[in-house]
This record gives sequence, C-alpha cells and structure tokens, in this order.
Amino acid sequence: MSASRLARFKATLDQRQPDLRVLLDQVHKPHNLSAILRTCDATGVFQAHAVLPDAAFEIHRHCSAGAGQWVHMQTHADIETAIVALQAEGLAVYAAHLSPTAVDFRTVDYSAPCAILMGAERWGVSERAAALADGHITVPMAGLVESLNVSVAAAVILFEAQRQRQVAGFYDQPRLTPEVYQRTLFEWLHP
Amino acid sequence: MSASRLARFKATLDQRQPDLRVLLDQVHKPHNLSAILRTCDATGVFQAHAVLPDAAFEIHRHCSAGAGQWVHMQTHADIETAIVALQAEGLAVYAAHLSPTAVDFRTVDYSAPCAILMGAERWGVSERAAALADGHITVPMAGLVESLNVSVAAAVILFEAQRQRQVAGFYDQPRLTPEVYQRTLFEWLHP
Ligand SMILES: C[S@@+](CC[C@H](N)C(=O)[O-])C[C@H]1O[C@@H](n2cnc3c(N)ncnc32)[C@H](O)[C@@H]1O
Ligand SMILES: C[S@@+](CC[C@H](N)C(=O)[O-])C[C@H]1O[C@@H](n2cnc3c(N)ncnc32)[C@H](O)[C@@H]1O
Repeated sequence: MSASRLARFKATLDQRQPDLRVLLDQVHKPHNLSAILRTCDATGVFQAHAVLPDAAFEIHRHCSAGAGQWVHMQTHADIETAIVALQAEGLAVYAAHLSPTAVDFRTVDYSAPCAILMGAERWGVSERAAALADGHITVPMAGLVESLNVSVAAAVILFEAQRQRQVAGFYDQPRLTPEVYQRTLFEWLHP
Repeated sequence: MSASRLARFKATLDQRQPDLRVLLDQVHKPHNLSAILRTCDATGVFQAHAVLPDAAFEIHRHCSAGAGQWVHMQTHADIETAIVALQAEGLAVYAAHLSPTAVDFRTVDYSAPCAILMGAERWGVSERAAALADGHITVPMAGLVESLNVSVAAAVILFEAQRQRQVAGFYDQPRLTPEVYQRTLFEWLHP
C-alpha cells in the first residue's frame, strides 16, 4: 500500500458528505446505476440508497468494481420504508419529479441534510413515493423531449448541491464522525 | 396538427441557441449519444456535431426517433476538420478534458459563442483534438473514480452554460435567424 494511495483515501474521506444522499426508486439499467455511483463519488456522496428490482441488484453486486467500491449502497425492501427511514434520520427527501408542484432544482437549499430521490427509467417516481417526499424538484427543460436521462438529472442536481456545499465550506473539513471515517478507511485499505 | 403542437415547436425554437454546440469525438455508446441529445434538446442546443465510428453512426441513424428529431446532428470525417470548421464559424472550442492545463468548468463564459468537445468513453479526448481546442475544462471530482460518465459530464457543463445564458437573457427572445427558424419549423411540422 503506497503512501499516495493512503493520501487519496484520506482526501476523499475528508470531503465525504454524510447528509447528502441519493435514493433510487427502481432505477435498473446497469449503465445508469454505474453513472450515478460515479457522480456520487465525484460529488462526495458517502451513502446511496436504492430499491432495486432483483435483477438489477444482482448486476449491481457483480459490476460494482467501479464507483460501487467507494460509495456505500444500502438497499431497501420498498420505497416507503426507505423514505421514512431517511426522514427519521432528519433528512429532507426531494423527489426529482416533473409534477405540477415541482420547483426549479436551483431554488432548494442542499446544505441542509437531504436525499435526492430519482425515479425509474420508464415509470419515473412512483405516486406513493411522490406523496411521501418533502418536495418535488425539476431540472427545467427548454425543448421537446419529456425528460432527461436519470443519471443526467441526478448529476445536474448533485453538482448543484456540491456547489452550494462548497460555498458553505462543507468540503473544507471532515464531516464524517471519526468512527465512520476510521472504519471506512480501514475497509478501503483492506478490501 | 394541433395548435398546441405548433405552440410547443415555436416555444422551443424561441429558445434555441445557435452558438452553443457540442462536438462528440468518437462517443459511440447509443445510450450515451441518446442521453446527450436529450440534454441538448433540454438546454436549447440547436446543433450537435460528431465524429462517429461507423457502427455508431448507423445506430444513430436508426435510433434517433427520440431527441435526434429535435437536435440537428452534423457528422464530420475527422476531429481536426470538425474543430477547424467550428473555429472558422467564430466558436471557441472547449475540450472537456482532465488535462493539467484544464480550468474549472464554472470559470468559463459560455455566453460567448462556443462548442463543448466531449471525448470517447474509453479513450477520452484525443491528443490532436486537445491540442487544437481553445481551452480545456474539467468538472471537479472530490472522489476516487477518474472520470464521470460522458453524458453526465456533458450535462453538468451544458446546464451551467444554460444558466449563464439565462442570466444573460438569451432565452427571452429568438436567437435563430428568421430563415433558419422558419425552415426548422417547416421540417418539424412536415417530417
Ligand atoms: C427518464 S425519467 C422518467 C420519465 C417518466 N416518463 C416520468 O414521467 O417521470 C427517470 C427519472 O429521471 C429524473 N428526471 C428526468 N428528467 C428530469 C427533470 N427534467 N427534472 C427532474 N428529474 C428528472 C426523475 O427522477 C425521473 O423519475
Ligand atoms: C469516461 S471519460 C474518458 C476517460 C478517459 N480515460 C480519459 O482519460 O480521458 C469520457 C469523456 O467524458 C468527459 N469527462 C468525464 N469526466 C469529466 C470531468 N470530470 N471533467 C470534464 N470532462 C469529463 C470528457 O470529455 C471525457 O473525454
């Protein structure tokens, strides 16, 4: 294990944001899951959550050699349980959802603890999930297609969250608890 | 043809940005091409450019029922020709490229005429293209993976360009020439 590898792990953990999450509601295409996890890693998301169809879960287990190594992925049995668990932790759950009550994603304060809920490729955010969410956000579209690719929408929102948190100084000192920091460092050093 | 369809076409053309382009250097996965064209449509990109491997070109021709209908795609024989042609039109070509000279993508002024050059999934931006570009830009990464998915990187940059142009009032009145506007409207109405 090289010193530079240790330094890179520490630099990454120094910037991880325990209170910025994503929650994926049946997102199942492996290339979308993989793209979203890469974005999570890049924006400092420490933990992702997902309700996965069984097939996608298998794919995820076997293909997560990439960003999946660096972003914890917690799976949940169903979307209600997942949303309620996140809210119980004190996170606001914002559904990326093109509903009539949705607000422009740039108007939300992502420096407060939050999770971004992304819907499935074909069906979008389920009605039950939309009803439980604390708010709906959209990335405004100036064209004719009805939606963005799900990994694209997630990235545009997460990089806005990262920008806001950067301004707030959230990437300047460690935000993980010392215990979680050390445990994760250990796991990364001894995979 | 319904009146609302005509109104949607006009609202879209009213916001199209002739001087904000993308140039794809051998991006070849259909799901990435499709995601990028959806993002182009959503951010008001009127024209995309690509140097495509032959296989991808065939795929593009046959699968462009989606966003490909609404975003012109001009293909070029090779990347040098493409870059030189865009520069001759007065556009600055910014390569999304993780090079030592790259600057943070948010520091660039995208309200000036420009094209965003995206590299291939595996190889990135070629050396020749990087040398010809007017500048290199990166989306900063706080983690351990080396790059973002190409459609994700394109989207993060294009939505920043759109934000800047919105502030500059570029979406408030038509920017296409009357001739291009009418020709495109005619094509969309009579496909
Ligand atoms: C391909 S879209 C699903 C489209 C689906 N037909 C619908 O009506 O919701 C997949 C997911 O990407 C996200 N998404 C796509 N475009 C978005 C946008 N412009 N704003 C916010 N979220 C978006 C949403 O989470 C959505 O559930
Ligand atoms: C998957 S990346 C290619 C990675 C390749 N191994 C390299 O070294 O360039 C595909 C393209 O996405 C774009 N890209 C990915 N991550 C980026 C980032 N953080 N900043 C700017 N562009 C990025 C670049 O245009 C890149 O050529």
